[in-house]
Amino acid sequence: MVANRQELVEKAFAASKVAEQMHRFYRGKIQIQAKCAIRSVDDFAIWYTPGVAEPCRAIERNPLEAYEQTNKWNTVGVVTNGTRVLGLGNIGPEAAMPVMEGKALLFKYLGGVDAFPICLDARDPEEVIRTTRILQPSFGGINLEDIEQPGCFYILDRLRQEMTVPVFHDDQQGTATVTLAGLLNALKIVGTTLGGARVAMVGAGASSIATARLLIAAGATPGNIVMTDSKGILNRNRTELRESHRDKWDMCLITNAEQRTGGPGEAIRGADALIALSTPGPDTVKAEWVRTMAKDAIVFACANPVPEIWPWDARDAGARIVATGRSDFPNQINNSLGFPAIFRGALDVRAKTITDEMCVAAAQELARYAETKGLQEEYIIPSMDDWEVYPLVAAAVGVRGIDQGVARFSDATREQLVAQARDMIRSAREGTQLLMREGYIPILNLEMPGRGVEGQ
Amino acid sequence: MVANRQELVEKAFAASKVAEQMHRFYRGKIQIQAKCAIRSVDDFAIWYTPGVAEPCRAIERNPLEAYEQTNKWNTVGVVTNGTRVLGLGNIGPEAAMPVMEGKALLFKYLGGVDAFPICLDARDPEEVIRTTRILQPSFGGINLEDIEQPGCFYILDRLRQEMTVPVFHDDQQGTATVTLAGLLNALKIVGTTLGGARVAMVGAGASSIATARLLIAAGATPGNIVMTDSKGILNRNRTELRESHRDKWDMCLITNAEQRTGGPGEAIRGADALIALSTPGPDTVKAEWVRTMAKDAIVFACANPVPEIWPWDARDAGARIVATGRSDFPNQINNSLGFPAIFRGALDVRAKTITDEMCVAAAQELARYAETKGLQEEYIIPSMDDWEVYPLVAAAVGVRGIDQGVARFSDATREQLVAQARDMIRSAREGTQLLMREGYIPILNLEMPGRGVEGQ
Repeated sequence: MVANRQELVEKAFAASKVAEQMHRFYRGKIQIQAKCAIRSVDDFAIWYTPGVAEPCRAIERNPLEAYEQTNKWNTVGVVTNGTRVLGLGNIGPEAAMPVMEGKALLFKYLGGVDAFPICLDARDPEEVIRTTRILQPSFGGINLEDIEQPGCFYILDRLRQEMTVPVFHDDQQGTATVTLAGLLNALKIVGTTLGGARVAMVGAGASSIATARLLIAAGATPGNIVMTDSKGILNRNRTELRESHRDKWDMCLITNAEQRTGGPGEAIRGADALIALSTPGPDTVKAEWVRTMAKDAIVFACANPVPEIWPWDARDAGARIVATGRSDFPNQINNSLGFPAIFRGALDVRAKTITDEMCVAAAQELARYAETKGLQEEYIIPSMDDWEVYPLVAAAVGVRGIDQGVARFSDATREQLVAQARDMIRSAREGTQLLMREGYIPILNLEMPGRGVEGQ
Repeated sequence: MVANRQELVEKAFAASKVAEQMHRFYRGKIQIQAKCAIRSVDDFAIWYTPGVAEPCRAIERNPLEAYEQTNKWNTVGVVTNGTRVLGLGNIGPEAAMPVMEGKALLFKYLGGVDAFPICLDARDPEEVIRTTRILQPSFGGINLEDIEQPGCFYILDRLRQEMTVPVFHDDQQGTATVTLAGLLNALKIVGTTLGGARVAMVGAGASSIATARLLIAAGATPGNIVMTDSKGILNRNRTELRESHRDKWDMCLITNAEQRTGGPGEAIRGADALIALSTPGPDTVKAEWVRTMAKDAIVFACANPVPEIWPWDARDAGARIVATGRSDFPNQINNSLGFPAIFRGALDVRAKTITDEMCVAAAQELARYAETKGLQEEYIIPSMDDWEVYPLVAAAVGVRGIDQGVARFSDATREQLVAQARDMIRSAREGTQLLMREGYIPILNLEMPGRGVEGQ
């Protein structure tokens, strides 16, 4: 049993061991590719001067023509200042580049969205806001990423007000969406309603607060949520937060009806579900705390790269359903299930914003899909292998956007949106596979310890 | 003869007629594509979390690792604020998008460079400077484009000083490079040296001033150059420019040894070569002025989309060699011969800047290539069909950069640089053609009046 755990831990680190070698080999994860035909160099008289003057004039007359005659409609800026990258903290915009490139890769491969990494040398939230606004003409949407709190809340709020393209902060809305999807299904398995569930949340970072908000938007009872930060449980005595951290203070006011005090151990006691969006473990959440949870406990330990508690330890401590943020364990609470499809849907109806309700629709669609495939304790949420779910989620987001009146295109049916999204995503995937097959993307096969050679 | 000219004019507008239709069909000219292999979704554990933390940490330790583990080394931002787009003027950053996308397309197809359009909602030069600097972590180079003067001079100078990646203003350095290449060969045909040639320049915009500077750097005699702006010939009496326009004033001081006065007609009289980088014609340069030029006159009428004088009119007026900016006439003075290869070369030796000498080396290599193929009055410069010239120019730029000590990689030989550039450019072209052949880039065949169906 001990040897087996050792193996599991090694497997969990296998990707890290080959990652640097693989990154050095490819020297970049995304590239620019033509989207239009180049039948001969004569075509550059159409795509560049003199022909290009025509679409320029059309856009000058009507700026919305940019959506018709350029790739703006499908282009998303992945914007960061590198102040809170993964679990690595404030490593800066240069060091954030591999994550943002990876994100762009996922955007295309899973959602058919053309995303580009924008790493800003700007720690000040006002500078991030100004720069992102100035970049608006190039983009049809903005995905904020890995920005420290509390600045990230302010940046998101300001940009949503001031920009005419949808602005989304994946660490807030994306994480919240996928976490909600997993929780909805976990609760179905254990037979508890969202409204009745007692939810402990360890961590009060941007993702945690956004998740609490989305759970509430979806029907959770605010008073049943108990959240902790590094100083302990959030409650109405935490008045030091009133000025310094408005968003946490809001949580102090609406959560924790019992007004519990203490640390995570006290927050977790008796909970039906624990959602940890905190610092990497493996001992951020202790097994002894999990032992005090209600019967059929649900544990989401989402820190990366190492969960707050290893899944096997959580299970030994009595958890019935365990989810993590890792792809190599069952039940991955994986943002990649969310943002590619959410943006696909928002872009396809040309939404002006991405509302909480659109995120709830995405979560419900993700949950429904997994339910259709058959819920199990180790299958509460789709995986990235479940290609078919992405167009369904995109369409759910688009339809909700139309219903709410935030879509500029509002005459598409759900079926049309599904079909369109499916075609775009399939084309993105197949294009990459074609370039691999024909040698334009070389294939380097490195052995991942404990997994064998990848891709074989 | 009149009917024939009518046909020629129609042909000259053929691209414009189909351009809007083609732009509407493709809705974008570039897309994001994977550059690394995705053997299965398991690979996202390498390209994204948890594996991606390793390259992030490596870059945090040493920022230069970004060049080794991300696509920064091959990524160029095409930055504009849309204040002077083609011949269209200040049409704004939204309307500039089709040009910047086209530029990115050319960067990849001709130079293997991954370029991305950055259209800034910022008219103020200080704002352009600040924003571009903040964007530095994402890019290995910056190509400024279509920015009004005099701001563009200031922006280029400041960014070259303040950024650690090469910054290039294509309308200045790119145009100057290709114009110099053409002029070198035209002078060979008529048997005049660059140092001895009398050069009239109509237009004193950014491209014109930069061209004059590069001609001088390559050996032209400053006093033999006579330049006009909208108010007439630049000379030392144009003291109103001393404060308002430093760069024009510099020209007043060093050019026009005869201290001519008057308009373009007076500037052109007796000149061996006329370089018009002015406003679209067809009557900006009058045939009667060309008649006053020296024997075997050289006329470069580079405005787009309509040259300052139609080539047939210039020839009727006695010009022996005529060049324009259009792809549908012989001798296209085409920036696309310059920037893709110049950046290819600069990126491949990881140059800190792109010097005038590197641009002169590019021009000389372009001229040499055309000479090798056999100079004629209608072939003074390569065309975009001459694929083989791009790696040669890239290597010439790289070698000059190494010689000048501005390259961070300095142990590559010319042959290695040629081979590497050739592989990258070939791969870019073939990848696009493969996606077209297999239907992932659809092919729309529209008839261009006077040219037949394109691509057949």
